[in-house]
Amino acid sequence: MTRVAIIGAGPSGLAQMRAFARARDAGATIPEIVCFEKQADWGGLWTLTWRTGLDASGEPVHGSMYRHLWSNGPKECLEFADYSFEEHFGRPIPSYPPRAVLRDYIAGRAEKSGFRDWIRFETVVRRVEPFGDGFTVISENLATGEEVTDDFDKVIVATGHFSTPNVPEFEGLADFPGRVLHAHDFRDARNFTGLDLLVVGASYSAEDVGLQCWKYGAKTVTMTWRSAPMGFNWPDRVDERPLVTRFEGDVAHFSDGSSKRFDAVLLCTGYRHHFPFMEESLRLRTRNRLYAPGLYKGVAWAANPNVFYLGMQDQWYTFTMFDAEAWYARDVILGRIALPGPDAMEADMAAWAAREAAVDGGYMAIDFQTAYVRELAHATDYPPFDLASAAASFKSWKRDKEASIVGYRDKAYPSPVTGTMAPVHHTPWADAMDDGMETFLAVRAAAE
Amino acid sequence: MTRVAIIGAGPSGLAQMRAFARARDAGATIPEIVCFEKQADWGGLWTLTWRTGLDASGEPVHGSMYRHLWSNGPKECLEFADYSFEEHFGRPIPSYPPRAVLRDYIAGRAEKSGFRDWIRFETVVRRVEPFGDGFTVISENLATGEEVTDDFDKVIVATGHFSTPNVPEFEGLADFPGRVLHAHDFRDARNFTGLDLLVVGASYSAEDVGLQCWKYGAKTVTMTWRSAPMGFNWPDRVDERPLVTRFEGDVAHFSDGSSKRFDAVLLCTGYRHHFPFMEESLRLRTRNRLYAPGLYKGVAWAANPNVFYLGMQDQWYTFTMFDAEAWYARDVILGRIALPGPDAMEADMAAWAAREAAVDGGYMAIDFQTAYVRELAHATDYPPFDLASAAASFKSWKRDKEASIVGYRDKAYPSPVTGTMAPVHHTPWADAMDDGMETFLAVRAAAE
Ligand SMILES: Cc1cc2nc3c(=O)[nH]c(=O)nc-3n(C[C@H](O)[C@H](O)[C@H](O)COP(=O)(O)OP(=O)(O)OC[C@H]3O[C@@H](n4cnc5c(N)ncnc54)[C@H](O)[C@@H]3O)c2cc1C
Ligand SMILES: Cc1cc2nc3c(=O)[nH]c(=O)nc-3n(C[C@H](O)[C@H](O)[C@H](O)COP(=O)(O)OP(=O)(O)OC[C@H]3O[C@@H](n4cnc5c(N)ncnc54)[C@H](O)[C@@H]3O)c2cc1C
Ligand SMILES: NC(=O)c1ccc[n+]([C@@H]2O[C@H](COP(=O)([O-])OP(=O)(O)OC[C@H]3O[C@@H](n4cnc5c(N)ncnc54)[C@H](OP(=O)(O)O)[C@@H]3O)[C@@H](O)[C@H]2O)c1
Ligand SMILES: NC(=O)c1ccc[n+]([C@@H]2O[C@H](COP(=O)([O-])OP(=O)(O)OC[C@H]3O[C@@H](n4cnc5c(N)ncnc54)[C@H](OP(=O)(O)O)[C@@H]3O)[C@@H](O)[C@H]2O)c1
Repeated sequence: MTRVAIIGAGPSGLAQMRAFARARDAGATIPEIVCFEKQADWGGLWTLTWRTGLDASGEPVHGSMYRHLWSNGPKECLEFADYSFEEHFGRPIPSYPPRAVLRDYIAGRAEKSGFRDWIRFETVVRRVEPFGDGFTVISENLATGEEVTDDFDKVIVATGHFSTPNVPEFEGLADFPGRVLHAHDFRDARNFTGLDLLVVGASYSAEDVGLQCWKYGAKTVTMTWRSAPMGFNWPDRVDERPLVTRFEGDVAHFSDGSSKRFDAVLLCTGYRHHFPFMEESLRLRTRNRLYAPGLYKGVAWAANPNVFYLGMQDQWYTFTMFDAEAWYARDVILGRIALPGPDAMEADMAAWAAREAAVDGGYMAIDFQTAYVRELAHATDYPPFDLASAAASFKSWKRDKEASIVGYRDKAYPSPVTGTMAPVHHTPWADAMDDGMETFLAVRAAAE
Repeated sequence: MTRVAIIGAGPSGLAQMRAFARARDAGATIPEIVCFEKQADWGGLWTLTWRTGLDASGEPVHGSMYRHLWSNGPKECLEFADYSFEEHFGRPIPSYPPRAVLRDYIAGRAEKSGFRDWIRFETVVRRVEPFGDGFTVISENLATGEEVTDDFDKVIVATGHFSTPNVPEFEGLADFPGRVLHAHDFRDARNFTGLDLLVVGASYSAEDVGLQCWKYGAKTVTMTWRSAPMGFNWPDRVDERPLVTRFEGDVAHFSDGSSKRFDAVLLCTGYRHHFPFMEESLRLRTRNRLYAPGLYKGVAWAANPNVFYLGMQDQWYTFTMFDAEAWYARDVILGRIALPGPDAMEADMAAWAAREAAVDGGYMAIDFQTAYVRELAHATDYPPFDLASAAASFKSWKRDKEASIVGYRDKAYPSPVTGTMAPVHHTPWADAMDDGMETFLAVRAAAE
């Protein structure tokens, strides 16, 4: 019997198990599946931890999320086609849920699918090596310290790429007397109340971590960019400057000649695709981009197509894209989709890479990724849903953000699965200090 | 030719290379040696980094030291018998140097020994497996991402055991709104100026990190113990309480019924011996103790005595003990010392373990470790030195600490190598805010 290893039980790994479970439920013979998950529970990044650096077992902490994190895109752009928000919550909910609500939703579909016993929790994969036509996988049970070596025919890597921080060096940073941390280790904006905060980076983490700190009372927040400013209509106490050139004690000097004293430096400088457990020839090497090199259809490792990677793209779509990829990988493994020869794979990857190269700006990136998701989903029996509506919501979201960076989360969008329009949340995001699930779900009651 | 792998170029790994280099210089034929060091330079923990969590390559940061760290024992208790402080600095220096001074001393002996080209810097060992009579070692060059597989006859693990934090859970800690960190991630006491600080733990890190914060202006420092209080004569603004039972928001409740509000929690709860790269059968498992189980003479892995571990004991002696162990391991590898059979090894380990079990308190622990160092050093040609004098200094140091926890670093001790009495430092530790090497070494000039 074919043996499939899935590494990681975050949204991508769960999508893969869901895909196989659906095939099984529909009567297909499916391979033996073992999922290795180093954390004690599923949900990947969506499981919050107070820990930073190394975890209780000495492994790098996977979590990069923090208290008071809300979805930064409409939930309608990540809705599972086979498990709507209405099905999970029993009614429509607002478009921008906090972390705990999305985690509950992810876990809900997984729970319903009956594959928990495929997963070896608290088990880290230490090494994957080619072995004959397949692979040897060495894993360690972190609770007992016991090592196990298994053989598999297929390996699916679903370990995410927002957990290993990219931490650049700046002149003088080694002598900065205040706290210096990467967004990966940020856990609570209340650590920074009353402080003058420098944020390095100009993407989602910078924007959201900076705004969290503003919301919870930082004295000032200075965002700094390398390539281009975010240029949002920042609220009072927040400003944006070009990159730091050097630190002198607690003073940062910027490339426009200005300078300012800071209490803390928050490096929101992105993450690294990091797969130290993969033998060199199997290891994906890429920066965060729309089409990662070497992956046929963004999924199959062309150099050895018994290896698959899920969710390794720069993410506009998230759960929806992971589902499309997982259904696609499943169908390759089940023999429902035949991979072409090496030359045809190369040609296809080159064509996608050329399309990627032509992308200019966010709206075109949304179109690119919509087309990508469509191609994969359509190649499989992933349930039809209104992808065009999701794409339209993404574009409105982008406009909403440009109109108001503190107000965009107060908007509502239609579901691409059920068509229902989301209700508006009972409290504007800027005033919503409690991110608990009960408070959020109290929306209908409060509105009634 | 015999091939020896040394993993780590901290004080222990450097001691091992020094031992082989000395044998070579004296005309012996020595094996081929490859040292793997994941950092860009040698010195181990003594190389300061501002980074925390994961490093620029995505590897766990090795460093646990911080700004303003001073030796916490007399330097006379760690002096190299074959390279005195007077030889390195050209004159006697005070007994409690800051970190940079000790790092300079360690690097000085290494530089002089001519083995830098044995070391592959920025190269992490990912996996060590038994292979035939020897071992396969998989390493990765972190600068290029290139993996290399080598075979070795002997493997010496010198990766230290104060880099993987032991981080316990406490009820309510997940909801504590302030900063929570382990001592491993502590870098600068000035982060805590003006704050109410809770320190968990009652050993060296708690004592020193707590006192640093006091010295650099923390509002209050509350130390908490599990087994026994440290019981020092704490200065104003510092107090000691029994263990936290739970947190409620930013308030900690203690087992004596008291409670207090805090801005930050510093977990000084020790470290874990962590060797994820060692195949299970080769992996030392131990807590921090005087005699680690499974290591014949505290050095040779009895289950496979082609594997050696250096410096894995609870450390009273440091560099001196690493030297004794390294000379011993070298002589086993050179065939100068013959290891006895398994039963004799077991019997010897059992005898040492029984002696360890009889140790009651710090003064007896010093005697135990003095006897251990003596036995190993005497079995080799490690240069004779006045070990009894070092042991006496340890005991005086312990009494000095009991007399004054903020004043003990102002004392001076005689060198066990040259016999010279150390000069007294120009500035009392409590007033010495600058820990730079130039400032420290300005002692003679200032005194003249
Ligand atoms: C701060 C932050 C906020 C985000 N907010 C949003 C948002 O609002 N909306 C959105 O759609 N997306 C958001 N994302 C994007 C996020 O990447 C996806 O939502 C999603 O979590 C990716 O799922 P994944 O399964 O690919 O990876 P992950 O969620 O990272 O899960 C990977 C899993 O693999 C496990 N693992 C890793 N290494 C090993 C190993 N060696 N052995 C065994 N198991 C291993 C991990 O423990 C983890 O469970 C956010 C990301 C970050 C960093
Ligand atoms: C905060 C703190 C303060 C201390 N202060 C003192 C003091 O004042 N006086 C004193 O005598 N001792 C002190 N110590 C004790 C310290 O343990 C020793 O001084 C000494 O550094 C131990 O040397 P080592 O070589 O065994 O380990 P380390 O110094 O830890 O060196 C181990 C080396 O192995 C490398 N390494 C680890 N894993 C790998 C891998 N997989 N592949 C390749 N390389 C790897 C590391 O990068 C590092 O260079 C202190 C320790 C701590 C944590
Ligand atoms: N739900 C939420 O609110 C939320 C919050 C945070 C993050 N997220 C998610 O997390 C993921 C990661 O986002 P991210 O912002 O961490 O990473 P990212 O999108 O990859 O952005 C990295 C940023 O770091 C900058 N950078 C990198 N190296 C730098 C250097 N040496 N100097 C200066 N700047 C440097 C980049 O600048 P250049 O443009 O110049 O390269 C870029 O602005 C995204 O999927 C996002 O949606 C969501
Ligand atoms: N140069 C310097 O000034 C300096 C500074 C810091 C450290 N160091 C060195 O660093 C090394 C490590 O010292 P360390 O203090 O980090 O480690 P350590 O000596 O192993 O002490 C660990 C401490 O953590 C406590 N602890 C562990 N788990 C706990 C839990 N669940 N709850 C409460 N307490 C818990 C232990 O209490 P129990 O006793 O109850 O087990 C003990 O007090 C030493 O070699 C030291 O010399 C030197």
